[in-house]
Amino acid sequence: MTDRLYLYDTTLRDGQQTQGVQFSTDDKLRITAMLDDLGVDHIEGGWPGANPTDSAFFETVPQTRATMTAFGMTKRAGRSAANDDVLAAVLNAGTKSVCIVGKTNAKQVREALGITLEENLENIRASVAHIVDQGREALFDAEHFFDGYAIDPGYARNCIATALDAGARWAVLCDTNGGTLPTRIGDVVRDLIAPTDGAEGLPGDRLGIHTHNDIGMAEAGALAAVDAGVRQVQGTLNGLGERCGNANLTSLIPTLLLKEPYASRHATGVTAEGLKRLTRMSRALDDILNRVPRPSAPYVGASAFAHKAGLHASAIAKNPGSYEHVDPSTVGNARIVPMSNQAGQSNLRARLTAMGLKVEKGDPALGRILETIKAREAEGYSYDTAQASFEMLARRELKLLPAFFEVKRYRVTVERRKNKYNKMITLSEAVVVVKIGDEKKLSVSESLDETGSDRGPVNALSKALAKDLGPYQDAIDDMRLVDFKVRITQGGTEAVTRVIIDSEDGNGRRWSTVGVSPNIVDASFEALLDAVQWKLIRDAGATATA
Amino acid sequence: MTDRLYLYDTTLRDGQQTQGVQFSTDDKLRITAMLDDLGVDHIEGGWPGANPTDSAFFETVPQTRATMTAFGMTKRAGRSAANDDVLAAVLNAGTKSVCIVGKTNAKQVREALGITLEENLENIRASVAHIVDQGREALFDAEHFFDGYAIDPGYARNCIATALDAGARWAVLCDTNGGTLPTRIGDVVRDLIAPTDGAEGLPGDRLGIHTHNDIGMAEAGALAAVDAGVRQVQGTLNGLGERCGNANLTSLIPTLLLKEPYASRHATGVTAEGLKRLTRMSRALDDILNRVPRPSAPYVGASAFAHKAGLHASAIAKNPGSYEHVDPSTVGNARIVPMSNQAGQSNLRARLTAMGLKVEKGDPALGRILETIKAREAEGYSYDTAQASFEMLARRELKLLPAFFEVKRYRVTVERRKNKYNKMITLSEAVVVVKIGDEKKLSVSESLDETGSDRGPVNALSKALAKDLGPYQDAIDDMRLVDFKVRITQGGTEAVTRVIIDSEDGNGRRWSTVGVSPNIVDASFEALLDAVQWKLIRDAGATATA
Repeated sequence: MTDRLYLYDTTLRDGQQTQGVQFSTDDKLRITAMLDDLGVDHIEGGWPGANPTDSAFFETVPQTRATMTAFGMTKRAGRSAANDDVLAAVLNAGTKSVCIVGKTNAKQVREALGITLEENLENIRASVAHIVDQGREALFDAEHFFDGYAIDPGYARNCIATALDAGARWAVLCDTNGGTLPTRIGDVVRDLIAPTDGAEGLPGDRLGIHTHNDIGMAEAGALAAVDAGVRQVQGTLNGLGERCGNANLTSLIPTLLLKEPYASRHATGVTAEGLKRLTRMSRALDDILNRVPRPSAPYVGASAFAHKAGLHASAIAKNPGSYEHVDPSTVGNARIVPMSNQAGQSNLRARLTAMGLKVEKGDPALGRILETIKAREAEGYSYDTAQASFEMLARRELKLLPAFFEVKRYRVTVERRKNKYNKMITLSEAVVVVKIGDEKKLSVSESLDETGSDRGPVNALSKALAKDLGPYQDAIDDMRLVDFKVRITQGGTEAVTRVIIDSEDGNGRRWSTVGVSPNIVDASFEALLDAVQWKLIRDAGATATA
Repeated sequence: MTDRLYLYDTTLRDGQQTQGVQFSTDDKLRITAMLDDLGVDHIEGGWPGANPTDSAFFETVPQTRATMTAFGMTKRAGRSAANDDVLAAVLNAGTKSVCIVGKTNAKQVREALGITLEENLENIRASVAHIVDQGREALFDAEHFFDGYAIDPGYARNCIATALDAGARWAVLCDTNGGTLPTRIGDVVRDLIAPTDGAEGLPGDRLGIHTHNDIGMAEAGALAAVDAGVRQVQGTLNGLGERCGNANLTSLIPTLLLKEPYASRHATGVTAEGLKRLTRMSRALDDILNRVPRPSAPYVGASAFAHKAGLHASAIAKNPGSYEHVDPSTVGNARIVPMSNQAGQSNLRARLTAMGLKVEKGDPALGRILETIKAREAEGYSYDTAQASFEMLARRELKLLPAFFEVKRYRVTVERRKNKYNKMITLSEAVVVVKIGDEKKLSVSESLDETGSDRGPVNALSKALAKDLGPYQDAIDDMRLVDFKVRITQGGTEAVTRVIIDSEDGNGRRWSTVGVSPNIVDASFEALLDAVQWKLIRDAGATATA
């Protein structure tokens, strides 16, 4: 016997408040499709009329299994709900569901709105009733609810009761400032649902919870409210949101589905199959927003199931469950045993085996590889993410790296000047000289793309390097550079540049390589070379000249 | 009447398990000084004998107000505590306090250690007693305690009681896999301290809690244990740690000091003055580790008190408390109202005023600036962090940007080839042509530093640009480039490179500028130009030629 718990996603509205995040309408459509695929119950698409992107998004409301919801605010005092143009714009979006925010904090009603407590109640009542009259589902978002409850619990509760009495399907208790402790949230919700003063309780199956992460407890706060009886949980993918973010649905959903007592007690719209797509979905959202995925993100982070300690890694090999709270595959993530100079030989062998490189226990190459990693990490290299460069390093020590070609020299020029039309233009040019067997090959490329725009020196270098690799040309033709990350880091006593390059090929394979140098072009070239070699090993291994 | 709560920091030991983190001995010493300054009670320095860095760190135990603690493990079966070389190495470090990890999970004792439950209890007892016999404070770290308690609560409790009976000052309940819900942690701790079966309770003032963040609730779990009666909290700065990290002391400490019921109920070693250094300390740790600070980090993140929504920003101006759960200055952080195309004119004016640029309400330049920001953000620029570039943009629209000089053209060459000693070398050279007033100046620089090493094309460009700026030379002589961040981002339909440059001058001022181009050198040059102009406005404003 399970009790339905409803998931309300506000990535597209509250998530948009994240500093540095700016969705395009197309981004919003892609994220809507992801959320619908995941199985949330409501998708809050934005505030029609508040900005051009949101208005454009609602011009054609996407067809979704989830209930598409438009966000707005209660009518202002001194006019009827039907005559409030802001509310009208929200209703005009034509969504099945409408969520309106209103105040429940007595102090703010008086000071920020400058109206009486009675007027505010009437604004809530009339706005909700108007939405219901239009045949829509109404939600009331109780801004600053927990702070309001601390000041005047009777009034805060009255606002919620008013919204529900006027026909709101849900009243959502918002910890707008994110500073309320989970225990306090639980106490307040219990007090609402089963008041100790004998008053009539509010129905938990019409209450929602909306928390923020300002003390790092947004998800714990949401669960405390669920424990106390609310049945709708609001949050965002990857915990996007203003300041420290909203409750992170990417963490909450697996906890609700995989952990007791929630797994047995509640059902949600997310299936076990949907859950397996969670990691990919989280990364895809970061891709859309061009954010670096947080490696330590619960469940979906690249490090969430990474085992570094030598002690732990050997225990993991014996019994994976011993250091994992859930099976990584349930959320579409994977166990990794990264390399670093803390890792012992057993880590290293496990890693090499995963790459198809069988090495016997006690092989002296293992010690050499560990030493090399240690020395290179001291120079500024990092092999935690650049697994393809790690493989090249190991192959070099194991004498399993074919000598495909040798780079004799290169030269790159970047020039910015006025062209003959007196317009400033930039042009890059690269010359690369390689030797394949006994044959020397000079290649030159400029950085212009098909539209005539300059794509920069690394592009020119990459094109010159890939222009004529003779027998290997076919293998690398479908390679492309998809990301390029640069950090200034410390190599010994000097600051050096670390470049990590992500490459992709026509088979959808994606691999990362690293280069380190005080010179960014040189560091990039080193990472490019590793990337090309990794690809050649996969697709041209048999034809190496060495 | 307050009850002392003890803070135990394990940044240097468990924090070192973070993927991609590798402390040097010097890093450890700097972090030790920071922690001691903050006011934690214990600093766990590492595992003497486990790796060269930790051994070197303990060679001379730093003098600290906090109790320096060495970490190790219980003696192995089949030998006495005095004859266990691993334990001996830990004791030899000579710290006042020693923390040893041991198993409390009956299943793991049998399967991973392959010893009897009795033998394991004896290992705990003898190891703790041996440490106490040496005149040291002993702590027992109960690995997998909560998972063990779920399987065999009696045995798990017995391990803790054995350690305490043998003289351990603290027994620490570890949620090693990080998957235990805070409510469950609270229930287990209550059951230990006040058993419902009539057994004798364990003393809460000798129990500690050690949580991990695998479900995003490490801090909530720690507080649940405190609520239930434990009096030591373990965690790390910035939540460093294996997988998803440990309980984040940088979040927990302000919550304990600023939030009720903790603020009145408990005292810690951290003062209000110490708390004001928290943000700086958190950023300094990221600097040491060359990690990008997480903007959304509770309390200390750059976005933690950033207000983006137009609706909220005007409320903030009226009453700062209305959208802030604590005053940002209590943790040494600051309120910011960043620019983005969601911001309204009131945001913009507040921002400009903070920069010393007074603009009247309704000035048409405000609208132009917002339009320009919007257009440039669509091209890939970001002004959330690059505040100095934002200032240049605003000054341009407000006609407050002096025309210091004009760049006519530049050229950069990077060449990698063998030198006359047949060694591969890289050399960069830059030519920059500027016009100052009527005078044209050609400057050329190569990228070699004082040791003859190549520092790359951006360095060469920066040097050539700064080589001869005539009347402005003095003002820029103390500028240096301190960080350089590159991301591939989307500018319209094309991928472009966004470069953010952090500069610093002799007065300790630090400012960020942004450049965007498909060409990384060009994007860097744009950011460099903004950085130089920002500096000239500060230090050479009066001498502009326009």
